[in-house]
Amino acid sequence: MKSVVLISGGMDSLVTAAIAVSESSETYFLHVNYGQKTSKRELESFERICEFYRPQGYKVIELNWFKEIGGSSLTDANMPILDHGESHGIPFTYVPFRNANLLCMAVSWAEVIAAERVYIGAVEEDSSGYPDCRKVFFKAFDKAIESGTATSTVICIHTPVIDMNKAEIVSKGMELGVPFDFSWSCYKNDDIACGKCDSCQLRLKAFRRANAIDPIQYYVKEV
Amino acid sequence: MKSVVLISGGMDSLVTAAIAVSESSETYFLHVNYGQKTSKRELESFERICEFYRPQGYKVIELNWFKEIGGSSLTDANMPILDHGESHGIPFTYVPFRNANLLCMAVSWAEVIAAERVYIGAVEEDSSGYPDCRKVFFKAFDKAIESGTATSTVICIHTPVIDMNKAEIVSKGMELGVPFDFSWSCYKNDDIACGKCDSCQLRLKAFRRANAIDPIQYYVKEV
Repeated sequence: MKSVVLISGGMDSLVTAAIAVSESSETYFLHVNYGQKTSKRELESFERICEFYRPQGYKVIELNWFKEIGGSSLTDANMPILDHGESHGIPFTYVPFRNANLLCMAVSWAEVIAAERVYIGAVEEDSSGYPDCRKVFFKAFDKAIESGTATSTVICIHTPVIDMNKAEIVSKGMELGVPFDFSWSCYKNDDIACGKCDSCQLRLKAFRRANAIDPIQYYVKEV
Repeated sequence: MKSVVLISGGMDSLVTAAIAVSESSETYFLHVNYGQKTSKRELESFERICEFYRPQGYKVIELNWFKEIGGSSLTDANMPILDHGESHGIPFTYVPFRNANLLCMAVSWAEVIAAERVYIGAVEEDSSGYPDCRKVFFKAFDKAIESGTATSTVICIHTPVIDMNKAEIVSKGMELGVPFDFSWSCYKNDDIACGKCDSCQLRLKAFRRANAIDPIQYYVKEV
């Protein structure tokens, strides 16, 4: 059974990749650079993850237009990345309908190579509150795949870590021996993780709760 | 009411654009170049359509990856464009999950500019038999938009020509005074339309049935 795996380079997608590898006969890793501020570092993570797992195929897609339309502090140079706790509701880091775009690319590729699964490392509860990380969204998207692809095509979205909290994801990763030192979560920096943005704070808390040591370096390591 | 309109440059999307302009206070035209063989000519059509309708905004998105993944005779240099009647079932021109990808980009842009509608010129019955041109697909996609965007976002897909046959689309276009001479439908050529591919044949038949004259040039004009 072939699978396409969306890999950002963060810890959730890394653990998802490890699960996909354990459940599939062939895996195809897909990374999308959509102009996010840490894109260079995330691509490096993706490359190292590919070297580690040696998937049957991998692809990097470059998109310029997310940066052009703006609307997110991850892609818009004029919007600062806030520290954890500085915003309420849907965070400014939300990239409009991003996961739907990522899934579409993965589904197009999956349809061409006759893969049956698309894995994405979305987390619902213990996450940043993005609408496109919820089960209700993936269920709706599955229906769109069913009706929008050839009748011979059978592709389902798999979200193996969606119900885990971040500490459980760390534990699962340890169990599967994932190379956490290759992953990158910081929204702000691409050399040493800031330790203050939402993503760093969620990751630091996760390792602490899992009684594990995060192998990457931080400027500030307070939770 | 703001609308984003997907415009390929063909007659269906041109008539859809005219309808969108008549129904919206502001329109934003979006063209996607996904490496199709006639992309240069289609972009030219888009530019002329923009000059004609003068939307409040327009954007051209360049995608390289559709060509890379292959799987369609529209984007794959090694797959020939067949003449009308040479294939059965879903045609080789089907680009895997293309419309979902196009809709995603339009929705992302719509969410940033707070547009409430995304127009797409899909035709269900009288068309080439693509799965992603069916109402059941757009209905499913509407649900994915609802659950995958911010709660404050209200975006619906509009497909005003989906139930028309091609002759009715021509008639509607004549009624709205659309510049059919700016549109391009041929899958094969980018100078003079071949007249033989699926798309040319559907268009030629449409104008004949509507008792109208197609203002563009063809190599062969037999239906």
